[in-house]
Amino acid sequence: MQTGPDYFLDDIEPDMCFETGAITLDEADIIGFAEGFDPQYFHTDPDAARGSAFGGLVASGLHTLCVTLRLFFDLKLWPRSIIGSPGMDEVRWTQPVRPGDTLSGTVVVTAVRRSRSKPDRGIVTTRHETYNQAGEAVFSALCLHMVRVRDAMPVETAGDPDSGL
Amino acid sequence: MQTGPDYFLDDIEPDMCFETGAITLDEADIIGFAEGFDPQYFHTDPDAARGSAFGGLVASGLHTLCVTLRLFFDLKLWPRSIIGSPGMDEVRWTQPVRPGDTLSGTVVVTAVRRSRSKPDRGIVTTRHETYNQAGEAVFSALCLHMVRVRDAMPVETAGDPDSGL
Repeated sequence: MQTGPDYFLDDIEPDMCFETGAITLDEADIIGFAEGFDPQYFHTDPDAARGSAFGGLVASGLHTLCVTLRLFFDLKLWPRSIIGSPGMDEVRWTQPVRPGDTLSGTVVVTAVRRSRSKPDRGIVTTRHETYNQAGEAVFSALCLHMVRVRDAMPVETAGDPDSGL
Repeated sequence: MQTGPDYFLDDIEPDMCFETGAITLDEADIIGFAEGFDPQYFHTDPDAARGSAFGGLVASGLHTLCVTLRLFFDLKLWPRSIIGSPGMDEVRWTQPVRPGDTLSGTVVVTAVRRSRSKPDRGIVTTRHETYNQAGEAVFSALCLHMVRVRDAMPVETAGDPDSGL
């Protein structure tokens, strides 16, 4: 299993910045995803897509979002301390993603706020920006993460992905 | 091909409301999606998930989002006039989605704004709410859609999904 920083809330500070790995999307990836979740013709039919505003097949924005977050999860910033995600804000698609494009991104911590009502946890806000191989920004979003503080985590509910618990 | 209202911007007004169909997610669906895009243990490992804050396997929030939008696209509200989506705001996961849950939702038009710089199009804002079979709200979001006005759409770039263009 790939290792990562394995942070708890105590370890995370605003302005921390991370670079993700990269994923290349081919035409089959784009069509396969879109047939499952976003079967609009400019995501599923290369011929019909030529008549769209994009001038050719483009990835579903949901696909770009999912790839962006897959690259983020692969950083394993807080795999044991994550409780869940409350949501996302300011999700924006800024350039089309086409077959053969290679996506990678940056993740910046923009806020860390400890809960007053549940002091064993807090909310981390991250800003995600995703780029293609030409360096063009194709996607951005703010994501919220509920993360445990280190000393509040009993072993029996640690949820360590390696422990089999 | 399923038919739908096939609206253009001119046809769309605030407070229009639509009900989606339904999709049931089983354990294999949840694990399969998560292995591709969100391989956190509480989405991929039923045994390990028991030790998580969720107490069992839950769907990735990205999966719930993608299913929500699949149900929306299946309504075919504006399949020919859609240009693309600028983004989403206020994405919120409010209850976990578990194996066997059946999701369905509502879509309400909250704003329609014609572009001043490009009068052949405008932005439609929709509010999406997704429920499980018990009627609990599991997800909500605001989605933006760039949609053409009817008389601004030349036939040669119509992008009619049935025309093969």
